[in-house]
Amino acid sequence: MANFTKEYFRMSESDVALYAHSRLNFFDGSAQLSCCEIGDGNLNYVFRVVDTVSGKSVIIKQAGPVARISDDFKLSPDRNRIESEILRLHQKLAPGFVPEVYSYDPIMNCCAMEDLSDHQMMRLALIEHKKFPQFAEHISTFMANTLLLTSDVVMEHKEKKDLVKNYINPELCEISEDLVYTEPFYDCPRNIITPGMESFIKENIWSDQALLLETAKTKHEFLTNAQSLIHGDLHTGSIFIKEGSTKVFDPEFAFYGPAGYDVGNIVANLIFAWANAKATILDSTKREDYCAYLLETIQDVVNLFSKKFLKLWEEQARTRVERYLGFKEYYLGTVLRDTSAVAGHELMRRIIGLAPVKDITIIDEEKPRLWAERTCLTAAKVFILERERIRTGDDFVKVVLAAEKQIGDY
Amino acid sequence: MANFTKEYFRMSESDVALYAHSRLNFFDGSAQLSCCEIGDGNLNYVFRVVDTVSGKSVIIKQAGPVARISDDFKLSPDRNRIESEILRLHQKLAPGFVPEVYSYDPIMNCCAMEDLSDHQMMRLALIEHKKFPQFAEHISTFMANTLLLTSDVVMEHKEKKDLVKNYINPELCEISEDLVYTEPFYDCPRNIITPGMESFIKENIWSDQALLLETAKTKHEFLTNAQSLIHGDLHTGSIFIKEGSTKVFDPEFAFYGPAGYDVGNIVANLIFAWANAKATILDSTKREDYCAYLLETIQDVVNLFSKKFLKLWEEQARTRVERYLGFKEYYLGTVLRDTSAVAGHELMRRIIGLAPVKDITIIDEEKPRLWAERTCLTAAKVFILERERIRTGDDFVKVVLAAEKQIGDY
Repeated sequence: MANFTKEYFRMSESDVALYAHSRLNFFDGSAQLSCCEIGDGNLNYVFRVVDTVSGKSVIIKQAGPVARISDDFKLSPDRNRIESEILRLHQKLAPGFVPEVYSYDPIMNCCAMEDLSDHQMMRLALIEHKKFPQFAEHISTFMANTLLLTSDVVMEHKEKKDLVKNYINPELCEISEDLVYTEPFYDCPRNIITPGMESFIKENIWSDQALLLETAKTKHEFLTNAQSLIHGDLHTGSIFIKEGSTKVFDPEFAFYGPAGYDVGNIVANLIFAWANAKATILDSTKREDYCAYLLETIQDVVNLFSKKFLKLWEEQARTRVERYLGFKEYYLGTVLRDTSAVAGHELMRRIIGLAPVKDITIIDEEKPRLWAERTCLTAAKVFILERERIRTGDDFVKVVLAAEKQIGDY
Repeated sequence: MANFTKEYFRMSESDVALYAHSRLNFFDGSAQLSCCEIGDGNLNYVFRVVDTVSGKSVIIKQAGPVARISDDFKLSPDRNRIESEILRLHQKLAPGFVPEVYSYDPIMNCCAMEDLSDHQMMRLALIEHKKFPQFAEHISTFMANTLLLTSDVVMEHKEKKDLVKNYINPELCEISEDLVYTEPFYDCPRNIITPGMESFIKENIWSDQALLLETAKTKHEFLTNAQSLIHGDLHTGSIFIKEGSTKVFDPEFAFYGPAGYDVGNIVANLIFAWANAKATILDSTKREDYCAYLLETIQDVVNLFSKKFLKLWEEQARTRVERYLGFKEYYLGTVLRDTSAVAGHELMRRIIGLAPVKDITIIDEEKPRLWAERTCLTAAKVFILERERIRTGDDFVKVVLAAEKQIGDY
């Protein structure tokens, strides 16, 4: 029988069932466990264990010694510790918006958490063109709370430095440094580029010296700005959703970085959903209705985040310095500037880089697919180059509409 | 007999002599050691141990459990580890510009290092109006090397993150956060203010909302910008100097912070020396000659630092991103912007804060003393408020000359 207390090994489905039975205080002795690997992420193995008697279920997530997506990435299983600790911290800072963590096991590098099978991965729900009217409200609360409450604005500075130290995350950061900030900006062999996009990318991205310069600035901002304990990978594939409930998971990329990184990822991934809808919904009324809903959601996310961020600042800013006239508005402005830049980076790296995004790759027909990619890249450039002036939900939406206008019909 | 291997205790002079004899591989068995406490810093106990037979000598520096300057500061003796490790790193990055470290003892929280008694503390030498024509050359090399070579521009990012983690320095950073960035900007009970300066400070500093706003920005830059492994307290009291030799010591405040912090401290402390010379040299030819020398030194420090920083960048920048057109000039610009802001902060905190500076306090007569303080504060405001336009050695000098003109004769 497998020994789970001595040394790490990669668990099979039957190992996980045995583990759940013997190591978790979760199921009854009489439970009949079935286990299935359900993961489709890039880095980990995710199992769902169900007691066929009671119907109770749990998710067990184990970190492998290398990334699933590619053996190129050697990853310390420390990311599993980071993930379970961050989920617990997020539960405290933004209650109800993350799955509950039941246990973390530093030997098997796995954690057991709430099964959210009644939710759907948000990216897939958006590809099915479902609406979630409360999403903007939920995610803006989650981001305002987790980002502001872990910053020097609210935290005692020595305690914040302890967190900085505890969540230095070199390997996962390196992935973002490479895939988000470096490789999309030259003809990197790892890039996955849709046939027909080569010349557009070469002319509009790789040859644009002014753009490259801005990406060097934003990359070094990512490398050096220890502002907030960010989720670090907050796209719609890291969110489970159902009517009335939004759950953010997969915070293994968490570290102290620019607060705008999380907000920018949300914005960019809503734009992917918008591009998907534009490219795939044939009925023009339904299409325009759904696209309007998505643009409104982008607008609401930015505006609600800003409003909640300022309100929380009023309530929680710790010292006199953070209460100087005009400082909170200035500070929020820098977060929104970074939001804009990161939205641009996420749009680019998912179209030019190693990790394409399903909202786009699912577009079967060539013309709408190329239209979607060109439109996203056109908006992305503006988000990066003009980030200093992009501040309101309306500013963000206008960038998308201008890109649509510029690229024209497909 | 004292046991130095079991448990930390604060050593007396005779303990230190015994320690040097029994624990260091430095003196002969026949050595006759005499020991004298020579420290006048704020945080530590510094002993000089001399063998009266051979003439060989060593410095032993022990961290106390609280700061010497005030029991308010409880400090972990970890700063002694940081100090010895950083001195060794600096020796590697900028050979010849720091004292040699012979040993570090994590039990007694002390280190043994090169005796630089043939050098003089630079602040005192400047108060004696001595010139050091090679200083700008030396300190600009020291700063360009230590600041650029520890940054993400040159270092592999994962290795840099290890250093960030290793030199998180919460307690010493807190001192700077309070004394440099917070307390000088309101009527803090700990502030030491020269009689006659109260209304000037109230009107020009504490009531200036625009200035306060900028200090909140620079404080959060200090709190979050993990750019370079900075010395963190690079004033002229942390430099030993003699003709042809410059040695930087006391790096216990070191942590990953804004590179401009070190450069700005050098500039500000040269301005204190300038104000001292203006206020105390009676012979006008000698005074103007010495003051011109100091302003030229400021100019050279900034210009040589910039030149060496760019040259080193050309030679050592690690990846394609740091070689994008225009990026190194942009980056240097941000370092010089921070240099200007920090010069302003250092000038302010040494005139308004808890730790006055000898260049100014030594000015006996009231009128020249008040003139010096007003002139420094006037320049300080410009350095903070107009930091975005201050870029060259000439720009820095012009701020000083404009402040002199504005305040007029004493």
